Amino acid sequence: MRVSLVGVTAEACCCLSAPRLEHSSRVSFTHPVPQDVLSVSLGQGTMVQGPPADSSGSRFTPLVVLELASDTNQDAIAWLLSRIRDQQQHGGAELLVEQLGPGVDAQEKENPNMFLVGATWQRLLSGAEDVGLFKEFNDGSMRAFTCANKHEFKDYQGDGDSFLSMAECQFIIKHLLDTLRAKQETHVPGHSEVKLYPGKSIIRRLQSKGILVQVFPLHEKEELKRLSFSWYGKVKLSLQPLDDIRHYYGEGQALYFGFLEYFTFALVPMALIGVPYYLFDWEDYDKYVVFAAFNLVWCTVILELWKRCSASMAYRWGTLSRKKAFEEPRPGFHGVLGFNPVTGREEPLYPHAKRLLRIYLVSLPFVLLCLYMSLYVMMIYFQMEGWALSVHDQEPSFWTGVLLFIPSIIYAVVIEAMNLIYRYAAEFLTEWENHRLESSYQNHLVLKVLVFNFFNCFASLFYIAFVMQDMVLLRQSLATLLITSQILNQFMEAFLPYWLQRRRNKKMMRKVQKRRTLEDKELPLADQVRLEADMSTYLGTFDDYLELFLLFGYVSLFSCVYPLAAVLVVLNNVTEVYSDAFKMCRVFKRPFSDPAANIGVWQLAFEAMSVIAVVTNCSLIGMSPQVKAYFPDSESQLILWTVAIEHALLAFKFILSYLIPDVPKPIQISLARLEFESLEALKKKSVGFALTVSNLLRGPGADPGAEPVNPR
Amino acid sequence: MRVSLVGVTAEACCCLSAPRLEHSSRVSFTHPVPQDVLSVSLGQGTMVQGPPADSSGSRFTPLVVLELASDTNQDAIAWLLSRIRDQQQHGGAELLVEQLGPGVDAQEKENPNMFLVGATWQRLLSGAEDVGLFKEFNDGSMRAFTCANKHEFKDYQGDGDSFLSMAECQFIIKHLLDTLRAKQETHVPGHSEVKLYPGKSIIRRLQSKGILVQVFPLHEKEELKRLSFSWYGKVKLSLQPLDDIRHYYGEGQALYFGFLEYFTFALVPMALIGVPYYLFDWEDYDKYVVFAAFNLVWCTVILELWKRCSASMAYRWGTLSRKKAFEEPRPGFHGVLGFNPVTGREEPLYPHAKRLLRIYLVSLPFVLLCLYMSLYVMMIYFQMEGWALSVHDQEPSFWTGVLLFIPSIIYAVVIEAMNLIYRYAAEFLTEWENHRLESSYQNHLVLKVLVFNFFNCFASLFYIAFVMQDMVLLRQSLATLLITSQILNQFMEAFLPYWLQRRRNKKMMRKVQKRRTLEDKELPLADQVRLEADMSTYLGTFDDYLELFLLFGYVSLFSCVYPLAAVLVVLNNVTEVYSDAFKMCRVFKRPFSDPAANIGVWQLAFEAMSVIAVVTNCSLIGMSPQVKAYFPDSESQLILWTVAIEHALLAFKFILSYLIPDVPKPIQISLARLEFESLEALKKKSVGFALTVSNLLRGPGADPGAEPVNPR
Repeated sequence: MRVSLVGVTAEACCCLSAPRLEHSSRVSFTHPVPQDVLSVSLGQGTMVQGPPADSSGSRFTPLVVLELASDTNQDAIAWLLSRIRDQQQHGGAELLVEQLGPGVDAQEKENPNMFLVGATWQRLLSGAEDVGLFKEFNDGSMRAFTCANKHEFKDYQGDGDSFLSMAECQFIIKHLLDTLRAKQETHVPGHSEVKLYPGKSIIRRLQSKGILVQVFPLHEKEELKRLSFSWYGKVKLSLQPLDDIRHYYGEGQALYFGFLEYFTFALVPMALIGVPYYLFDWEDYDKYVVFAAFNLVWCTVILELWKRCSASMAYRWGTLSRKKAFEEPRPGFHGVLGFNPVTGREEPLYPHAKRLLRIYLVSLPFVLLCLYMSLYVMMIYFQMEGWALSVHDQEPSFWTGVLLFIPSIIYAVVIEAMNLIYRYAAEFLTEWENHRLESSYQNHLVLKVLVFNFFNCFASLFYIAFVMQDMVLLRQSLATLLITSQILNQFMEAFLPYWLQRRRNKKMMRKVQKRRTLEDKELPLADQVRLEADMSTYLGTFDDYLELFLLFGYVSLFSCVYPLAAVLVVLNNVTEVYSDAFKMCRVFKRPFSDPAANIGVWQLAFEAMSVIAVVTNCSLIGMSPQVKAYFPDSESQLILWTVAIEHALLAFKFILSYLIPDVPKPIQISLARLEFESLEALKKKSVGFALTVSNLLRGPGADPGAEPVNPR
Repeated sequence: MRVSLVGVTAEACCCLSAPRLEHSSRVSFTHPVPQDVLSVSLGQGTMVQGPPADSSGSRFTPLVVLELASDTNQDAIAWLLSRIRDQQQHGGAELLVEQLGPGVDAQEKENPNMFLVGATWQRLLSGAEDVGLFKEFNDGSMRAFTCANKHEFKDYQGDGDSFLSMAECQFIIKHLLDTLRAKQETHVPGHSEVKLYPGKSIIRRLQSKGILVQVFPLHEKEELKRLSFSWYGKVKLSLQPLDDIRHYYGEGQALYFGFLEYFTFALVPMALIGVPYYLFDWEDYDKYVVFAAFNLVWCTVILELWKRCSASMAYRWGTLSRKKAFEEPRPGFHGVLGFNPVTGREEPLYPHAKRLLRIYLVSLPFVLLCLYMSLYVMMIYFQMEGWALSVHDQEPSFWTGVLLFIPSIIYAVVIEAMNLIYRYAAEFLTEWENHRLESSYQNHLVLKVLVFNFFNCFASLFYIAFVMQDMVLLRQSLATLLITSQILNQFMEAFLPYWLQRRRNKKMMRKVQKRRTLEDKELPLADQVRLEADMSTYLGTFDDYLELFLLFGYVSLFSCVYPLAAVLVVLNNVTEVYSDAFKMCRVFKRPFSDPAANIGVWQLAFEAMSVIAVVTNCSLIGMSPQVKAYFPDSESQLILWTVAIEHALLAFKFILSYLIPDVPKPIQISLARLEFESLEALKKKSVGFALTVSNLLRGPGADPGAEPVNPR
């Protein structure tokens, strides 16, 4: 790990009043803590004992920032810090933590309750074992890291080296903080309203009660500079540095960017084929049929191949066979206190039936109502469209020509606005449904938002295509929707937050320069941390995937009417890579990495879209005049043929997705080998253990009365 | 375990010439071998040393019979027996094995090379751990059995008790025999044509070369009598004794009978609703629509619920979360010798691409050709049908009325014959495709046979329904096909083999009675074994499932035309339970149990059928005159509505199958708890082990020079 952040002396440790941090900028050290020792952790346990500043001078790399509310009781802070520092066997997290000193502009209202969290290498390694991190083994395969055989891992060259990436360290610290549990406390000291019970995650309770304002990992300035340069800093035709992105942001982010890149390249053939259609104005439906058929097969194939591609990446990054720890309840989950039937721990329980009632009796009707409203808005749009058309017909001029586009643009803006409002409602409802797990909350939220967005974006197009059967209008609406939503998105997503952030940065810089000479262009640590704390929080890949999903819809659903859609989407994706990369590096706080093995529910969403695409395209082709000409006498013959072909295509799709294995052969073999080895090891284990123990017991001079050991 | 077979003295052990077995009939012992001792297996290792009959008198329960070809070289036999008896650490199977004495009629040509295999309790328990058997734990959950904590399992009350069922013991022995591997032998002694290489499974090689004629487990007469009485011995309205069936035949069989029972009960509502349609001759299509709609939803629901039901059973029987051992290549698999990339063992390798070529360039065209031929036969049938009809029309009489049924009956018989011939071809082709795994072989065989049978059985019905659109003929054909194939099946499946077996039994009895007095009605062991060796081999549940699959097709595909189908199928299933139970108990050799967790590929097949059923029923309803009456003007409107409803139903089906969880909640929790506990244990393991070992090493008087143990 290349540490580029400043280390801080632990002088101010535990002194809860006005701590002072040395601004010893740029102390680069590669071995921040003493070498791995067999007795479990020495120094930091003692730091808790007494307030006198430690003289061990244990410098540590700050990795994660905890920000408590500025009105937090000092007892609560002292208690929290001692719990974080406490040794593992006493139920603590055994981490290093220090209060952040005041910024250069301390006279201003500034939250003093910011804490930097770090850990010894020893603790990070044992934490890596706890979270089930996979690392590359000597033989090139990926294995779960264990401290016992750390020397057999490829990049392990002693402690303090670059074995764990900073993102991994931060993830480990987050896990250790999250699993810091209350012991016998009934409430947080000094805050009697914040109830606790044995086994409750302290951090989650503080978070849900608003005492813990935020927890976020720190950026690495040097690393980030290097990454952003290789990512978007130069105009080039190379691939994204996915491994570096994973190294810095974790697997979830890297998979998103991997998918974005894959999707863009996968659309290139469609775009290339689409260009001549536009250039030569091929209104010939025969050719459109060929194009649509190609699209359908192509969509299926690229989605199937993506699974393989994603499996390869996830294997390389060690998340493919990583076992997930048992999920904690999410911070907002509430209910009557009881015992979890799986863990046996005390935690709130909420009846499943009650949640189902809320989902089916409130959320579902609400979503349907929103869909109906969206339909209503659509109808108004078509009335406006008709009105504009009649004005233009009566008195055609340049301005009435422009007027023709106005309804579409207004509609696109209204759609974006409705999406935004609905999003808040969906989040509120899903929160209210009181899901126990974050993953279940996310799935329900994704489903709600997905359905509405899909409907909002595509209902008008379906209406034009199948009710009005006006292909010219369809093409025009498609183009308008596509281009408007693209421009809006790029603006809302990257440039607006960037501009706000830039203003904030400048203000901070000015403040700093007021008090310091200009010789040092780097911000001191305290200011850097405060600057990052003020940055917007990255809310996950949800919106990015949603955008890709809708673009995929535009391309796959109506490709046979508007072949240029693929070209537009490719162009959009290229700029999207740059704007997303830019916002990740410059606009947002660093997110915690997320050890994802695939793109999750989005794979399903994309596949569902490709099924709908088959139905839509077949109908569009069936409605084309050229195809109709083949069945001059009987419309029902035409429909029957269309339906038959559609069914055949759907069947073909399912068989194809069944025939293409989801995981490439070499990785299947690797996984099978690991499975096989662990089974073999298990077989030998009990025998080996018994032999070992009995040898030890029977060894020369061994105490025959020594109690035999239970091998479990 | 209640052992009801005779124990044999090991007198004749290893004497390869004319062994003599004491016919000490009915020696019932519940503790066939001495108590579990810590030193690994005493007696039987020494038995190999010298030919003089052992005086240890180690009686053992014969569990499995090995039959070698009568012309097997004596060296080969001696070598095989010594490898089977050899201790585990020397690479043997550590089992007990004895030659079977001659029958009462030894003067006849009788194979002398039959061997009885058994094992000590100790060995069976360690084998149970090897195969990953799940047993009920003290706390009621199902856990993988380990010898180390055997006392914590619920039914464990010391060795030699009924902890392992005989079926489990036989399965363990089969596994131990199958994993008996060649060491440095290049060929079987005395058979230089039977090549071996290190790591090759000896039993599988002997099997594929025809030296090992058969391996089969023995029946338990008493147990079988009890089982067959409670199963089919009395006419009653109770459920099948599934747990007893599982206890005697294993999980695969029990799941089949469970499915048969479930399927029968699930059809009862359909049958009950179908009866009035037949009785009151409701030709009203409106009512048929209701019936068909009910059927469609019902089919989906019962298949989904079956998954839950099957998961409950598999959990109770401990196969749900059992980990499968790495699969050995099947006996017939051949290729160039190389190293398996997963196990690292030497074994034949066969290029995957070559297999794919064989599948797509030979098997697939062959199957298509057969389908074409089947279509051709169908056309001939329709010509015959037309001819019979014209004869009847010209000169109607009783005999021409009978003539009307002749073509259907002939067609049904021809279909059965074609199915039979095709089956052989499919087996040959699948064998030739050279699949490495038995499971892959089975899947390819099932797929081939399924497609052809489906086509053969239903093509004519589809033709009548959608090309001829003759609903009266459809109903008549359906009834004829259903009844004919039912009668044929029951006859071919149970009564014919039973009659053959009965003749054989009588012959054997007569022989025995010739030489013995009539006082003892039980057959002596040697004769009993030889009798069982002559019984037909049960070829697995394939044909039974196939029959159910086709019946399900008759019910679900055309239910809206012939509501009585469900009644016929329910009646058939009731007799099927009896005839299947009868053939399992009386006609066939006992099969090895198969630790199945679900009905495997058949679940998929049934679900595919229910999808096809939606399409078929919607079309049939769309074609009905009543529905047509709603759209008097436009046929295409009718078709569009039908297609729309069909799509909605299919979407509903998929959403329903997604919403109903496959595993019931309590079992989900149980499984999650086990997973959680094993993760927690893993976390503590390495720490605990290190502590344990260091305590031992530091124990009073311990040798400080003792080598430290690698905890892996």
